[in-house]
Amino acid sequence: MKNSLIVQKYGGTSVGTLDRIEHVADRISKIRKTGADIVVVVSAMAGETDKLLKMARSLAKNPARREVDLLLSSGERISAALLTIALQARGIPALSLTGRQIGLETDSTHTRARIKSIDCRRARKMLNENHVIVVAGFQGINPEGDVTTLGRGGSDTSAVALAVALGAKQCEIYTDVDGVYTSDPRMVPQARRLDVVSYDEMLEMASLGAKVLQIRCVEFAHKYKMPLIVKSSFKEGDKGTLICEEDPNMEQPVVSGIMCDKNQAKITLKEVPDQPGIAANIFEPLAAASISVDMIIQNVSEQGHTDMSFTLAREELDEAMVIMNKVAKKIHATHVSADAKIAKISIVGAGMRSHSGVAAEIFKTLSANKINILMISTSEIKVSCIIEQKNSKLAVNALHDAFKMADKPVKKKTARKVKAV
Amino acid sequence: MKNSLIVQKYGGTSVGTLDRIEHVADRISKIRKTGADIVVVVSAMAGETDKLLKMARSLAKNPARREVDLLLSSGERISAALLTIALQARGIPALSLTGRQIGLETDSTHTRARIKSIDCRRARKMLNENHVIVVAGFQGINPEGDVTTLGRGGSDTSAVALAVALGAKQCEIYTDVDGVYTSDPRMVPQARRLDVVSYDEMLEMASLGAKVLQIRCVEFAHKYKMPLIVKSSFKEGDKGTLICEEDPNMEQPVVSGIMCDKNQAKITLKEVPDQPGIAANIFEPLAAASISVDMIIQNVSEQGHTDMSFTLAREELDEAMVIMNKVAKKIHATHVSADAKIAKISIVGAGMRSHSGVAAEIFKTLSANKINILMISTSEIKVSCIIEQKNSKLAVNALHDAFKMADKPVKKKTARKVKAV
Repeated sequence: MKNSLIVQKYGGTSVGTLDRIEHVADRISKIRKTGADIVVVVSAMAGETDKLLKMARSLAKNPARREVDLLLSSGERISAALLTIALQARGIPALSLTGRQIGLETDSTHTRARIKSIDCRRARKMLNENHVIVVAGFQGINPEGDVTTLGRGGSDTSAVALAVALGAKQCEIYTDVDGVYTSDPRMVPQARRLDVVSYDEMLEMASLGAKVLQIRCVEFAHKYKMPLIVKSSFKEGDKGTLICEEDPNMEQPVVSGIMCDKNQAKITLKEVPDQPGIAANIFEPLAAASISVDMIIQNVSEQGHTDMSFTLAREELDEAMVIMNKVAKKIHATHVSADAKIAKISIVGAGMRSHSGVAAEIFKTLSANKINILMISTSEIKVSCIIEQKNSKLAVNALHDAFKMADKPVKKKTARKVKAV
Repeated sequence: MKNSLIVQKYGGTSVGTLDRIEHVADRISKIRKTGADIVVVVSAMAGETDKLLKMARSLAKNPARREVDLLLSSGERISAALLTIALQARGIPALSLTGRQIGLETDSTHTRARIKSIDCRRARKMLNENHVIVVAGFQGINPEGDVTTLGRGGSDTSAVALAVALGAKQCEIYTDVDGVYTSDPRMVPQARRLDVVSYDEMLEMASLGAKVLQIRCVEFAHKYKMPLIVKSSFKEGDKGTLICEEDPNMEQPVVSGIMCDKNQAKITLKEVPDQPGIAANIFEPLAAASISVDMIIQNVSEQGHTDMSFTLAREELDEAMVIMNKVAKKIHATHVSADAKIAKISIVGAGMRSHSGVAAEIFKTLSANKINILMISTSEIKVSCIIEQKNSKLAVNALHDAFKMADKPVKKKTARKVKAV
């Protein structure tokens, strides 16, 4: 008989010390007794990735991404080996696998590679031989045979991709928080944990700076309808937050979460000659350098010139400025400036699809608090505003109150239940 | 025109801090200006391997060797990436390669694997493209695709194997000592650095506990006649010690070095029934566990019973005792005991081939110092004695004096020069 398969991922704080690794080994030991097949994906021990990155940056301002990948991937290999050793010490037949050994093939975009395929033959064979598999997350191998990494939080993506490839029923993400909150509790004391979030909402939240899950992980889960559970490895028996398809029974408030992303920067090009192809001239070199641009504003043209502003992740600001200074010369823009003191406040809710007036409520609330909006962007289930960074805490708390997000929503009655009444 | 190729290896202390890595990058930068092709092999940053091993051992008494290999190999990957980044910051087109990427294939004996082959195609291509190659030493890959390591000091072996495979003229080993000494200067204040040592002598010295080079590295160099130079990366312009074939012009004292190996242990089986096949019963299980036995003594048989003693590396004592306790039951030996308080004193010299009386001089000197000899073993160019560990410093200094090793030998005149006189 085929055993059920459990895929679990433990984050950096969950394997942050030898004691924590022992604790995780004890947890897995318990689950093992149920007879389930177990695949565990681990992150680097907390702090390790930052330590390595700091060393690289002390040697070179912009260390080559290929080398950074080799460097950083060591962290996950270390925790995979250590957890495997801890499991073996408990009499569990465990084996570690690196990104290459788990067959995780990616493209060649170092430090943020995309998964192309997973060849699970070796993992399946090991599971059939009754092994617990401990996988070094965050890493894969490109067609040249070089180590790649999947970007910050990439171990989550490794876990979901493996859960999909191996046909697990769900993927459990263990971290240092006990679920997904309406907002960051350190910033919003009233923040409430959500029991269920839809993929669409989680996707927006992740892309908006909710650090609990990497966006690519949620995309992957969404694409393959793999239910995710986010839990704390520090609490026993906690049910965490389930991330899954929208469902008529699902709690459905208008707004599910408020994010604040301070890791933002804005670049402005002044007096850009306003002619066809100018946007391509600006954004193609950024795309070529794999730099993602978020919001873009082009002012109304004056005397054949226009100003162009866009936002991007702050860690890419230096690289983007080098590129933009070249571009500005080429397209005869008079000036390039950068602003790193901004924040992006975003409100997310699947309920926006059926409720109007959310944007208006946001603008009213910010205005009442004398907070100026620098840029706005909206999607079907999201409204984002760029504001000055110093106003971010005030803005987030005011909006959390305005949308009554601390109150638990009432379960929506299903059609059948309504008939039965 | 084909450039000359230099293969250098930097040990753990030479890349032990970011400052040291910068220093090594500066050195390589200078050599690069001569137009030479450069392959650099690095060890893990000093202390890193021990730190990782300590973590593994805190999780399990005998962590599985496969997992230890994955764990430890991270250390060299980290230093390879960091040195590559430091070289790139100096405008040098450098690329890192792991054991797998350099094509270093080994057998499957985890934690002390043997090199089977090196597929240098990728390295050659990179050299042709004018890259400096930085190789993570100490590691390879076995036929199953798992990471293996070559044992302590294995990075030296990686370097020599690469020098041979790539056709370098010599292999430079940079370390924290400035060459090979007649004895350990911390133990023998009179110890003198040797300018030249033959492979045979170095092989004996390495196998006898001289930590400057791993035995397998010297074997490899000897087999392929690859000259080795041992130098300090902390001194500029130092010529170090050359290890090469014996040569009529070579300095040829009777005795070249005195080693003291405290990393020794002795196991004794008491009252072993003296019958054919008994030695095989004892030593085959040890060989199967890849445990090397050094000296063996079998007492004269009394009433059909004999005592059997043998020595081995101390780190293998625990594993060997587990095996010996099983063997003792099987062969009806009455008792198994271990002694870790011993030391092996060895005198090495190619000159012993043509000089008799070296062993007699050793026994006389030890006896004059009231030092008891527990076991003796000799080879063509070596005499080793097991003594009580507490006597080791006294013994080594007394022998260093007796053989006048602090005095630089006079160059032997060649046959042709003799004729000319």
